[in-house]
Amino acid sequence: MNPSAPSSALRSSSAWQALEAHRHELMGSHLRQLFAEDPQRFQRFSAEAAGILLDYSKNRITARTIELLLALAEQRSVLALAQAMACGERINNTENRAVLHLALRNRANTPIAVDGRDVMPEVNAVLGRMAEFVAAVHEGRWRGHGGQSITDVVNIGIGGSDLGPRMVCEALTPYARPGLNLHFLSNVDGGYQRDILRRLDPARTLFIVASKTFTTSETLTNARTARAWLLAALGEEAAVARHFVAVTTNVAAAAQFGLPEANLFPFWDWVGGRYSLWSAIGLPIALALGMERFEELLAGAHAMDRHFLEAEPARNLPLLLGLLGVWYGDFLGAASHAVVPYDQYLRLLPAYLQQLDMESNGKRVTRDGQAVDYATGPILWGTTGTDGQHAYFQLLHQGTQLVPVDFIAAARPHHELTEHHRLLLANCLAQSEALMRGKSAAEVEAELHAQGLTGEALAALLPHRVFPGNRPSNTLLVEQLTPATLGALIALYEHKVFVQAAVWGINAYDQWGVELGKQLARTIAEELAGEAPVQGHDASTAGLIARCRRLWPALSMAKG
Amino acid sequence: MNPSAPSSALRSSSAWQALEAHRHELMGSHLRQLFAEDPQRFQRFSAEAAGILLDYSKNRITARTIELLLALAEQRSVLALAQAMACGERINNTENRAVLHLALRNRANTPIAVDGRDVMPEVNAVLGRMAEFVAAVHEGRWRGHGGQSITDVVNIGIGGSDLGPRMVCEALTPYARPGLNLHFLSNVDGGYQRDILRRLDPARTLFIVASKTFTTSETLTNARTARAWLLAALGEEAAVARHFVAVTTNVAAAAQFGLPEANLFPFWDWVGGRYSLWSAIGLPIALALGMERFEELLAGAHAMDRHFLEAEPARNLPLLLGLLGVWYGDFLGAASHAVVPYDQYLRLLPAYLQQLDMESNGKRVTRDGQAVDYATGPILWGTTGTDGQHAYFQLLHQGTQLVPVDFIAAARPHHELTEHHRLLLANCLAQSEALMRGKSAAEVEAELHAQGLTGEALAALLPHRVFPGNRPSNTLLVEQLTPATLGALIALYEHKVFVQAAVWGINAYDQWGVELGKQLARTIAEELAGEAPVQGHDASTAGLIARCRRLWPALSMAKG
Repeated sequence: MNPSAPSSALRSSSAWQALEAHRHELMGSHLRQLFAEDPQRFQRFSAEAAGILLDYSKNRITARTIELLLALAEQRSVLALAQAMACGERINNTENRAVLHLALRNRANTPIAVDGRDVMPEVNAVLGRMAEFVAAVHEGRWRGHGGQSITDVVNIGIGGSDLGPRMVCEALTPYARPGLNLHFLSNVDGGYQRDILRRLDPARTLFIVASKTFTTSETLTNARTARAWLLAALGEEAAVARHFVAVTTNVAAAAQFGLPEANLFPFWDWVGGRYSLWSAIGLPIALALGMERFEELLAGAHAMDRHFLEAEPARNLPLLLGLLGVWYGDFLGAASHAVVPYDQYLRLLPAYLQQLDMESNGKRVTRDGQAVDYATGPILWGTTGTDGQHAYFQLLHQGTQLVPVDFIAAARPHHELTEHHRLLLANCLAQSEALMRGKSAAEVEAELHAQGLTGEALAALLPHRVFPGNRPSNTLLVEQLTPATLGALIALYEHKVFVQAAVWGINAYDQWGVELGKQLARTIAEELAGEAPVQGHDASTAGLIARCRRLWPALSMAKG
Repeated sequence: MNPSAPSSALRSSSAWQALEAHRHELMGSHLRQLFAEDPQRFQRFSAEAAGILLDYSKNRITARTIELLLALAEQRSVLALAQAMACGERINNTENRAVLHLALRNRANTPIAVDGRDVMPEVNAVLGRMAEFVAAVHEGRWRGHGGQSITDVVNIGIGGSDLGPRMVCEALTPYARPGLNLHFLSNVDGGYQRDILRRLDPARTLFIVASKTFTTSETLTNARTARAWLLAALGEEAAVARHFVAVTTNVAAAAQFGLPEANLFPFWDWVGGRYSLWSAIGLPIALALGMERFEELLAGAHAMDRHFLEAEPARNLPLLLGLLGVWYGDFLGAASHAVVPYDQYLRLLPAYLQQLDMESNGKRVTRDGQAVDYATGPILWGTTGTDGQHAYFQLLHQGTQLVPVDFIAAARPHHELTEHHRLLLANCLAQSEALMRGKSAAEVEAELHAQGLTGEALAALLPHRVFPGNRPSNTLLVEQLTPATLGALIALYEHKVFVQAAVWGINAYDQWGVELGKQLARTIAEELAGEAPVQGHDASTAGLIARCRRLWPALSMAKG
């Protein structure tokens, strides 16, 4: 990014320039004042879809800001590109692929064609196979090698083959079927694997190997160790096909592992990893909650898809969320975006959205290969509230950075501890109010006076207790966190990411940036296994390799 | 922060100005080239202390940068202020308190005086009481109300009373004593509490209520619900004192809860919450691992303390780490800092450091109350590798933001799965290499050529596969993650935060920024419990309160 270089088409566009000018107009305004001036601000800047209320009134915007942002979206053909995606066009241009996670949850079952061929029959066929398999496991018809039914399922996958199902299973804990425990193994760290396996009975454990290519290094290493653990206990190679299934397109590699095609659930090149929980990658969800709940999740996402594709721009939740992000990142200098769910079951949502957003939009060239001269994807981070309040909220309130926040809450809990939930909601609402209002020097002075402070003591403390306020947030409120509302919520963020990519002119659906590290890791793994001096590295990498070999000689193949 | 306002003393200092000028000199350099020019770069820019190797050679620095940063530290009296802290001076000026987490781990037992009074006898007395209590629980001498020994311990605390012990217990899983399970309850979310309690036997469960004031809203709400759960099972009030202990200074409130003074572990106003795991707040650690391991943890931190206070600046790890952060945040525009441990047991370290760093340095006024005109604390975030590689590393490699990374790894694992650990280490080293080197257009072109691509197809793909490189990282390598190395690692980050606060002239030990939200939450909790229209809020907050009441009528006290 080089802001002094000649402007890109985007930066020199009339919509962008209008926003630049508007930014200067808004600079002196404080949100407190904007609320005071407009009693209708909440109604004006809130909208609903698919069971989600989005209150975006606590943002540094006026009606004019929204108008200009919508004009930018119009100039960038954002919603037209969304239609192209929904119609199966190959919008993932660097990989020449369609982008059809919408088809996976197309509960209306309207035809969606890629190159003239409707994909829905295949989608429905896989859903049908998932339903059969889930029923067989639940009803005890699918049995282990020794004839016992399955009590534990371990999903072995990483990134998109892990975060989605893991997050959804955790989020929908209140809907979990009893009698079947889900476990997720992602990192190649051996301690992690050992700690999971030591609690399990091989005879009653089912592994799902989730890897599109069946070559992902971490996943295959974990799968091979799990396979060895299983065979050490059950003895015969034939056990593998009773205790392993795979979600993959690589039939040959799976066969070599010991899996017949009947144990494989396919997916398609038009499903990106971070958009894949709606496909057979969601098998752990269906096993944990039942197929009906999985279908409710799909239906919720589908409702949000329809909204995104059909709602008018000014009431379009993903469009608004996406444009607000552009406003903060490109015009107001925000480098990061925090997501804070006030719901312990959503504790993995920030990590999930971190992948969704940062892997999609962490790009520095446009679709046609031009280096951008504006900020693209932000750092997305966060944890649950109220925990976050006792950790990093200090910086949100009084730090030197602008960090827009999404607060997420459900009005109705899945338990009867009313006081707990009242406090949880109260804290969520109070934080957005505090960030927005702040506390002025005059207010602090009055408060300290009331506490008996005067003179120098008061003057010394006062500046530390001032909150500048004017710090923006969205609040996303649902009635209850159900499979359907969770599906809608995830789809909302997917489309938000889409909107931003469209504005920035980048391809949200490739991830070339992960390739180099993989290449280098293969070389270094071999070098760590050897004893000869290494070559071709910088002094730091060479020095660290040598140090690791010295600190743990068992790394060497010869000794290990 | 307003960079156009007249400069502060810091920004107009000669050291700062020299760094500004130096930044321009360095602008054209690429790390790849700096490594090529200096074969000694790894030796030059790495240092060791307390079992930790810090390789900081993959940073955008030259010997001159370090010289100028050390001059800045000298001008800002960073190490002199560290001595003042270590001597018990009241460096927490806004609360008029000493800052003495160093005393808690002062294994040399040299006197440390606050106002002329040595604190070590008190520190040692509490450690002695912890040791007795831990032994009583482990040996089955401490029994529940029904005479059974304790199998499960639930720590009820939030923020500093939660993240520290939780993170350390998880990190040192390989050292856990069998037979005693630790649980951590922080969030006020009732579902969280219910899910923990439903797995426990009240007769064999011990609760630790960790709250300095015994008034923390979340902690006391959780403690009261746990107390009710216990009494529902065990019947008599007298059971409370057999199943609850507290880490608090509020003897009266604890007594009202049912706890005699013998059940209370005190701490002091010179221990900040986020620096408190070394105090009785660390009781869960001692219970999980044994008192000896807890003391090893203290000893590791103490070793790092000695290093920080005694090592020459150019080899001083916390000083170097802190100054590098200042370099990136204030001179090269980095808004965030990622911490990526290649160790699944360290998965909570980023969340722990997030509190440590952001609550300490997320400040906008100096110690004497002047608004700063430079960036203070960054957003600290991260997850374990290799998982992160499959999530957000795309942005680190090809995004538009500068995100310095700390990679953390242990050469020797706690298991015998050599291949897993080799891959884990290889990935860690490969990522820092890839971020630093990048992949040039010429390299990409050669690679694509070798794959058979030519002409337009090659030209179209090429820019997407270029990695600019020159992206900085530190690597922190330990032989093995032991209690002592973990103690040293945490202390290293504590002192890094100290160094930055000293450079910026801010007080790292208060947290006024968390007060406003707490105040407002009390009001809103009452309003959520009522039915009358609310007043005194902005339209958004009022609208959300009304919506919550409508969506879940049980929120009202009358109905709930």
